[in-house]
Amino acid sequence: MTEPFVYKRRVQFAETDMVGVLHFANYYRLMEECEHAWWRSLGLNVVMEDTDPPVSWPRVATACEYFEPARFDDELDLSLIVEHVGSRSMTYEVVFRRGDDRLAAGRATIVCCATIDGRFRAVEIPNELRVKLPTTRSTGG
Amino acid sequence: MTEPFVYKRRVQFAETDMVGVLHFANYYRLMEECEHAWWRSLGLNVVMEDTDPPVSWPRVATACEYFEPARFDDELDLSLIVEHVGSRSMTYEVVFRRGDDRLAAGRATIVCCATIDGRFRAVEIPNELRVKLPTTRSTGG
Amino acid sequence: MTEPFVYKRRVQFAETDMVGVLHFANYYRLMEECEHAWWRSLGLNVVMEDTDPPVSWPRVATACEYFEPARFDDELDLSLIVEHVGSRSMTYEVVFRRGDDRLAAGRATIVCCATIDGRFRAVEIPNELRVKLPTTRSTGG
Amino acid sequence: MTEPFVYKRRVQFAETDMVGVLHFANYYRLMEECEHAWWRSLGLNVVMEDTDPPVSWPRVATACEYFEPARFDDELDLSLIVEHVGSRSMTYEVVFRRGDDRLAAGRATIVCCATIDGRFRAVEIPNELRVKLPTTRSTGG
Repeated sequence: MTEPFVYKRRVQFAETDMVGVLHFANYYRLMEECEHAWWRSLGLNVVMEDTDPPVSWPRVATACEYFEPARFDDELDLSLIVEHVGSRSMTYEVVFRRGDDRLAAGRATIVCCATIDGRFRAVEIPNELRVKLPTTRSTGG
Repeated sequence: MTEPFVYKRRVQFAETDMVGVLHFANYYRLMEECEHAWWRSLGLNVVMEDTDPPVSWPRVATACEYFEPARFDDELDLSLIVEHVGSRSMTYEVVFRRGDDRLAAGRATIVCCATIDGRFRAVEIPNELRVKLPTTRSTGG
Repeated sequence: MTEPFVYKRRVQFAETDMVGVLHFANYYRLMEECEHAWWRSLGLNVVMEDTDPPVSWPRVATACEYFEPARFDDELDLSLIVEHVGSRSMTYEVVFRRGDDRLAAGRATIVCCATIDGRFRAVEIPNELRVKLPTTRSTGG
Repeated sequence: MTEPFVYKRRVQFAETDMVGVLHFANYYRLMEECEHAWWRSLGLNVVMEDTDPPVSWPRVATACEYFEPARFDDELDLSLIVEHVGSRSMTYEVVFRRGDDRLAAGRATIVCCATIDGRFRAVEIPNELRVKLPTTRSTGG
């Protein structure tokens, strides 16, 4: 993928903490919102009931680095880049910017899962879905 | 019910906002935690899969009045009193105190529902559950 | 005010709960977002540091009724109507709709406060702010 | 530090999502609660106003791996181990367990900061605070 997907998001009051900044855990909620908007931009949804089997994408690892705090009412640009698509998983990075300032950078590895007997089970990414994903240097996973 | 059920809860950092106080919407989360602890104190659970039919308790109305702000690390006492048990619903009040200070008072009306075709449907409170509930002046509802 | 202020908001995944619906406490966060967008539509901000004195608007009472659940990815319309502007406070209603379906209706009473020695203190609504507010039948408060 | 600090925490209803599990971003809120309980166990607080200068501990990096989902009402044990204490920062790990099952493992690097002109600025960990911290192989940072 050459162009990152950009999601604009204003920091809401309830997302701040008593120090006056966007609470660090809320960056993960914003990353997820950005991912879900990216799925929609592909004509898909993070919960895909039409594929065989129906799949969703639980996270197996997430991380975030924080450079500068974001504050109430800040209008953030979140840029998502898919770094890797494997046979059953995917890793993406989201960079948080306010104007030209790079505030934070997060990363998530998500796994394509069917739900079998109420438990997640990793499955191959269904083909009808894979064809819509960006091509990256895939080497397993 | 003569004695209120008391639930102790410390205000967490992530629950504060940039004004330095417990965010107003989080009182509702605390009320719900208190309710769920109250169900457990009766040997029950808000999601009851053993009754016939299995039931849960969606809210139809909630409200809260705020008298004094709560702050990070405050140790709050939440006192729940069931005000009314109807045939299909129940109303309770939760008072928030810090020591002797009355900080807030909330109220919720919750309805006994089965889930039918993915939709909530109000049902009579199952008997095995009703016998554990406090007696109030019930007049319908 | 004749026309309600409308705020569009998609239900996010993290705002749902295990029953599969928008968690009841999150309606209050959405109401607040709608209010803050309304302040911005007036060229104002809920935290007003330019007035004399600087003021913010803590809530003294909030309430919500729930008619139909909202679900992940639903695109909601929130309509805010100011019901009452008093000398120091204001009450508004927010109706939540999905298309033509009326899902919920909330209400908040907020008080114009200066922060004095770290404590909220109700003050008269500063004039430069009052002139931008809608006119309602004001009778004190 | 030989013994980890253990914090017990029940998964609350509002912390679940529509898939029926503890939402991944909430692990970070639980990690933070555990850290704050650990500060208290040392007779300290994450917001320390008595030191010279007053300090707090913003995060510069957080991460979490997820092995098994946690669910509503699960009673979790969070074990915190300080991995590294530097001159201005600290890194700890928190392991999430339900009974013997290891559900997740998170990590945070937090930096000792004074607030100067409304901005965080990293400072040496004040001595009255450092003497209470566990000794680790400190090598800068």
